[in-house]
Amino acid sequence: MESQEGGRRVIIEGVKPEIDGGRFPIKRATGDKVQVEADIFTDGHEAVACVLLYRKEDDPDWSEVPLTFLVNDRWRGYFVVRDIGRYRYTLQGWVDRFQTWRKDLKKKMAADQDVSVDLLTGAALVVAASSRAADGDCARLLAWAEKLQSGADPEKAVRLALEEDLAELMARYPDRRRSTTYAKELAVVVDRPRARFSTWYEMFPRSCTDKPGSHGTFKDCEARLPHIAQMGFDVLYLPPIHPIGHTHRKGRNNAPQAGPNDPGSPWAIGSRDGGHMSVHPRLGTLEDFRHLLARAQEYGLEIALDLAFQCTPDHPYVKEHPQWFRWRPDGTIQYAENPPKKYEDIYPFDFESDQWQNLWNELHAIVRFWIDQGVRIFRVDNPHTKPFAFWEWLIAVVKKEFPEVIFLAEAFTRPKVMYRLAKLGFTQSYTYFAWRNTKPELVKYFSELSQTAVCEYFRPNLWPNTPDILTEYLQMGARPAFMIRLILAATLGANYGIYGPAFELCENTARDIRGEEYLHSEKYQLRDWDINHPDSLKDFIARVNRIRRENPALQNDGSLRFHPVDNEQLICFSKHTEDLADIVLVVVNLDPRHTHTGWLELPLAELGLDPHQPYQMHDLLSDARYLWYSGRNYLEVNPHVVPAHIFRLRRRVRTERDFDYFM
Amino acid sequence: MESQEGGRRVIIEGVKPEIDGGRFPIKRATGDKVQVEADIFTDGHEAVACVLLYRKEDDPDWSEVPLTFLVNDRWRGYFVVRDIGRYRYTLQGWVDRFQTWRKDLKKKMAADQDVSVDLLTGAALVVAASSRAADGDCARLLAWAEKLQSGADPEKAVRLALEEDLAELMARYPDRRRSTTYAKELAVVVDRPRARFSTWYEMFPRSCTDKPGSHGTFKDCEARLPHIAQMGFDVLYLPPIHPIGHTHRKGRNNAPQAGPNDPGSPWAIGSRDGGHMSVHPRLGTLEDFRHLLARAQEYGLEIALDLAFQCTPDHPYVKEHPQWFRWRPDGTIQYAENPPKKYEDIYPFDFESDQWQNLWNELHAIVRFWIDQGVRIFRVDNPHTKPFAFWEWLIAVVKKEFPEVIFLAEAFTRPKVMYRLAKLGFTQSYTYFAWRNTKPELVKYFSELSQTAVCEYFRPNLWPNTPDILTEYLQMGARPAFMIRLILAATLGANYGIYGPAFELCENTARDIRGEEYLHSEKYQLRDWDINHPDSLKDFIARVNRIRRENPALQNDGSLRFHPVDNEQLICFSKHTEDLADIVLVVVNLDPRHTHTGWLELPLAELGLDPHQPYQMHDLLSDARYLWYSGRNYLEVNPHVVPAHIFRLRRRVRTERDFDYFM
Repeated sequence: MESQEGGRRVIIEGVKPEIDGGRFPIKRATGDKVQVEADIFTDGHEAVACVLLYRKEDDPDWSEVPLTFLVNDRWRGYFVVRDIGRYRYTLQGWVDRFQTWRKDLKKKMAADQDVSVDLLTGAALVVAASSRAADGDCARLLAWAEKLQSGADPEKAVRLALEEDLAELMARYPDRRRSTTYAKELAVVVDRPRARFSTWYEMFPRSCTDKPGSHGTFKDCEARLPHIAQMGFDVLYLPPIHPIGHTHRKGRNNAPQAGPNDPGSPWAIGSRDGGHMSVHPRLGTLEDFRHLLARAQEYGLEIALDLAFQCTPDHPYVKEHPQWFRWRPDGTIQYAENPPKKYEDIYPFDFESDQWQNLWNELHAIVRFWIDQGVRIFRVDNPHTKPFAFWEWLIAVVKKEFPEVIFLAEAFTRPKVMYRLAKLGFTQSYTYFAWRNTKPELVKYFSELSQTAVCEYFRPNLWPNTPDILTEYLQMGARPAFMIRLILAATLGANYGIYGPAFELCENTARDIRGEEYLHSEKYQLRDWDINHPDSLKDFIARVNRIRRENPALQNDGSLRFHPVDNEQLICFSKHTEDLADIVLVVVNLDPRHTHTGWLELPLAELGLDPHQPYQMHDLLSDARYLWYSGRNYLEVNPHVVPAHIFRLRRRVRTERDFDYFM
Repeated sequence: MESQEGGRRVIIEGVKPEIDGGRFPIKRATGDKVQVEADIFTDGHEAVACVLLYRKEDDPDWSEVPLTFLVNDRWRGYFVVRDIGRYRYTLQGWVDRFQTWRKDLKKKMAADQDVSVDLLTGAALVVAASSRAADGDCARLLAWAEKLQSGADPEKAVRLALEEDLAELMARYPDRRRSTTYAKELAVVVDRPRARFSTWYEMFPRSCTDKPGSHGTFKDCEARLPHIAQMGFDVLYLPPIHPIGHTHRKGRNNAPQAGPNDPGSPWAIGSRDGGHMSVHPRLGTLEDFRHLLARAQEYGLEIALDLAFQCTPDHPYVKEHPQWFRWRPDGTIQYAENPPKKYEDIYPFDFESDQWQNLWNELHAIVRFWIDQGVRIFRVDNPHTKPFAFWEWLIAVVKKEFPEVIFLAEAFTRPKVMYRLAKLGFTQSYTYFAWRNTKPELVKYFSELSQTAVCEYFRPNLWPNTPDILTEYLQMGARPAFMIRLILAATLGANYGIYGPAFELCENTARDIRGEEYLHSEKYQLRDWDINHPDSLKDFIARVNRIRRENPALQNDGSLRFHPVDNEQLICFSKHTEDLADIVLVVVNLDPRHTHTGWLELPLAELGLDPHQPYQMHDLLSDARYLWYSGRNYLEVNPHVVPAHIFRLRRRVRTERDFDYFM
C-alpha cells in the first residue's frame, strides 16, 4: 500500500455517463457538452472538493473544471468538446480542510464560542497552502496567516478569516496529496456535426437516367443533384457501385433466373470486371465517380457508399483467397443461406478462417481505397452478420487516421445486437422506426432512445422506407401516410433519410401485400421515375428539411419529450436547444384518413414559459400563428390538408405595456 | 492479437448481479442460490451455447452449469453456495455449430431440400467432436459419423442425424476453442445463515440487576438470559463493556458535568483501567465475560459486541500513541465536534495520521482480541466517521481468517454513504426504518431495499428503537404503536432488533418531545426495569418471533412484495420461499388509535394460486382461519386488539371432492 493510500478518504462512484463500466465510449459532435455526474463523498462531516478532468486522448495533460453540488452527494460538471477525435474524462475529489474549517468557524461564531485556537489552526492551513502557491499568492497567503494569528484583535481576525477573498485564494491551492482519482478514464468519441444531424437520400444510380430503359451513369447522377439538393438533403447514399456477378444472378422481382438483360442486384458484388475496389463499367469510370463526388460537394451533398462485405462466385477473391470462404465436404463453397432460403449468388466471408487477419486487412484496404477517392460516409450492409470484434477493430483503425468518417449500421435485428454495434463504434444506426406506427409504440421506443443511456452511444437514423422495406402503413395509407411518416422521421430523429424517388412519388405497390418488397424493385431492375410528377412530395419535403435546418432544436435527439394528448391518434412531442432559445413542438395525426381533434397538456415551466403569460405558436408548415395561454390547448388536424403542425414556440407576445407611452 | 482472437464471435454483456462493474461482491448465506442473468449472442443466426462458471475463491477449478435461454438474447442460470467464504462466478459462451447445423437441417427437411452435402458436413462435425471425447464416447461418435455419411439410405441417415441421443452426446464435447469468457470474475461473499436471518436484543449489562441502584454485572446478565431467550431472540448485543473515562464525563441526561456516582457513557472508552481490550471492572472480569458467552450459547443466544473506535482523554492510547490523534496549535488534542456541538470527552482517531498503518493494525488487533474470546458478531459504532478504505481492509482481513464473523454497520447517515459501507463489506446495516411510518414511505423505501440491486449487497437490520432513537411515533402512539412497529420490523426485515427492556415495557417518555432521546437514558445512568410488568409485550414478542422461526418465508428480504389496499392506513405485503411452499401475508394497521377497514387486491397467479379455487388464510397471531376466494378481500383491523394479521396462506381447501365416496 502506498504511503498516502490509507489517507485517501473520498469516494467517487455512480458516474454518468459511463457505458458498460467504461468498456465503451460515449459519442458527441464538436461543440457539444459532455455533462458528467457522480456521487462524491467522504466519511465524517468534512467538506469535499472535486473536479472533472478531461483531455484529448493523445494529450498527456488534463484540463479541469470544478464540479457543482446538486443534492444527496451528487455532483455535476461539464466540458465542451471542440475537436474531432477522442477525449478522455475522469474525476478527482479530496477532503477540503480549509472549507471545513471555515464552515465550522461560522457555526462556532454563531454560537458565541471561543475560537482563538481555531484561528491558529486556520493560520496553519493558510501557511501550508502558501508553500503550494505561486510567488505573488504565496506572499499574500503568508500575510493572511500573519493577520489570523496576530491575536491582538480577535474580532477583526475572525472577520478576516471569513472573507471571500481568502476562500477564493485558498481554493486555488488545495492540498491534493490524499485526493482520490476515479479508477477509470472514460472515453468520448467526437464526430463532426453531420454525425449528429444529417438528411439522407438513397438513390440507385443506374435508374437516374432520363432516357427510359437505359442504364444510368454517374454523369446522369450529376444531373439529378439539383433535384436532391433542392429538397434539402445533405447526404446522397448510393447502393453498391461495383461490378455485379453473373453466376446465379437474380432476375426481376427476385426471380431465381435472370433474363439476358436483367442487371442483377448491386449487392451481388464481383465479376471478372473486378470486386469491391472497382466500379461497374456501365456506371462509368473511377474518374467519373470522383467527378460526381466533386459536383455533389458543390450542391452541399456528400456521397455515402455502401459497404457490403460479401462476394458473388465470380468475385476475384474467390480464386485469389479461397481460404476466406467456408468449404463444404463436396468441394464447393458454402453460399449464404437462412434455411430454407438459399442465396446461391452470394458467398459470405468465413470470419472463422485461419486467414482471418489477412481478411480483416483486406476489408480495411477496401475502406481505405474509397477514402482515398474522397468518400467519408459509409452505410454498412448487414453488419450484424459479421463478427463484432471485426467492426470494433475496423472502425477504430479507420477513425484513428480519419476521425471524420461516419459509419451507418444497417442492422435490422434484435435490440441487444443493434445496441452492441452502436457501442462498439458505429456512428449512426438504422432503427425499428419503420414498424412503429401507433402512439404507444412511438412513445415507448423513442423514450428509450432519447431518455436512457442508449442516447449516449446510439444515434438513430430514421427511414420511413428503404429498397427492402415498403411498410404496411405506406402500402395502405397513400399520400397522407407518406407525409405523416416523413414528418415523424424528420422531427423525431436528428438523422433521417428516405429512399427516393420511390418515396417522394409515393410509390406504394408491393410485390405481395403480405410482404414489404416493392413490386418491380430497383434491386433487380432499372426503373424510370418521373421526378417532376405534379403529385410529388418534393416541395413538401423541401419545406420540412428547411424547417430542420433553420431550427437547431431539431438537430439533437436527447431533448425529445412527449406531451399528453387525449386522443390516441394525435401524438405531440417537443425538442429544444439546451438554452431553450429554440423550442419546436410537433403535433402529428397518425391516422392518414380522418381529421382528429384533442386537448394537449404542455409543461410550461419545463419549457421556460411563464404560466401567466400568453405565448405564440408559429406553425412553420402552414405559416399560421396561434396565441395560446395555458398549458391546455385544443388541437385539430386534417390529414388531407397537412397531417401535422410543426410549431416554433415564440415566448414573447406584445402587449400594451410594450408601447412607448405605457410608462 | 491471439491466433483465435478474431474468431471469438460471442458477446456477453448486461450481467446481473454485478455491483459497480464488479468492484464489489454480492452477498449470500450458505444454501442460497446465486442466480445469474446475461445477454449472450453472436453475429449472424447461428446457435449459441453458454455456461455459468463458478468456484470457491481459493479453488483454481471452475464448476459449470448450463444457462437457459429466456427471451431477447437473455440467458439465466444459477448455482448454490454451500460453504462459507468467498466464491467467484463468470460466464462463457460459444457458437454451437452442431446445434446450428441440426436446426438448419430440420428446416431444409421440412422444405424437402436435398441434404446429402449437409449430412457430410454433420459427419465432419461429429468426427471433430470425437477427437475431444472420452474413450467410449469417441467410439460412439465415430460410429454415428459413419452412419451419417454412408449415403446408402439418405432417409435413414437424416432420421439418425436428428436423434436426441446424438445431440446430447455432441453437447458434451463442444468446440470451445473460440469461446468468449466474460472479462470479469465476479465475487460472492457467503455468510452463515444468521447473516440473513437474525433477531437482536440490545441490553445494557449494567442495568440488568434486580437490586435497584446497584451496578449490574455479567453474572446478572446471565440471569436475564432465560427472559431474552423466551422472547425468541438469537443475538444479544451489549453496548461497549470497556472501562469508561473520567475526564469530561457526561452526567445523567447528558449533563455536561457528571455527578460523583454517575457511571458515564459506555461509548466513552478508556480509563486507567484500560481500553478497548479491557473489561469495565464493575461488570466483572474477562473470565466472567467468557462465562456469559458460554451460558448464552446454551440458550441459543450469541453475544454481539460494540466496536466504537474512539477514546476518552484517559485512554491508554493517548499517552502511548499520541500520533494517532490530531493535535491543535495550542498543544491540545482535537476532541470530537460537530460545531457548535463539542464532545470533549471523546478523542477521535486521526486516520490521516502518518502512523495510519500502525493504527489500522491496532484496531484489527482489538477485533482479533474479542474473536479470541469467542465473539463472532460486532455492531460497529458510527462507521461513517472513519475512512471507507479502512473498513474494507479490516473486514476483508478479519473474514479471510474468520469468515463467520458478522459486522453490523450502525451508520445513520446519507443513503450513498450507507450503501457504500454495505458494498465494501458490512454484513448487515441499520436503516431509515425508524423514520418510515406512513404507507407511501414504507412502500417506497422497502421496494428500493428488496427489488433493486441494493438487495444484492445491503442486508437491512430493522430497529424500531435504539438507545438514541425514541421516535415520535412511539412517543405518541403508546402500546399499539410498539406492537405495530415490532410487527413491521419483524416481517419487513429478515433481520431486526429491539433495544430492551425499554421496548417491551413500552417506555416512551422523551427527554424533550422535540427530540428522540429517552428521559433518564441508560446511556448516562443505571436503570431499574420491571421486566415482569403485566403490561410487558414479552409474550407478544415471543409469538411474533416464533412465527418468524417457523416460517422460512420471513427469513429472506428479496421476496417482499406490496399489495394494494384502498385505505392509506392499511399496509399489506407478502413474502415467500422460492418454491412458494411457504407464503406469508402481513396486514398492518398503521394507525395506532382507530380501527380501519379496506379492500385488498392479491395477485393470485403470482402467488401460485388457482384463481378459481378457494384458499385458506390462517392468522398466526390470533390463530383465526379465513376462507378467501378471489384476489379481492375485505380487511378490518382494530389496533386495540391486535394491530395486524400475519397470515400463512394455505393453498388447499377441502371440498366434497376430497371425500372417498365422491368418485
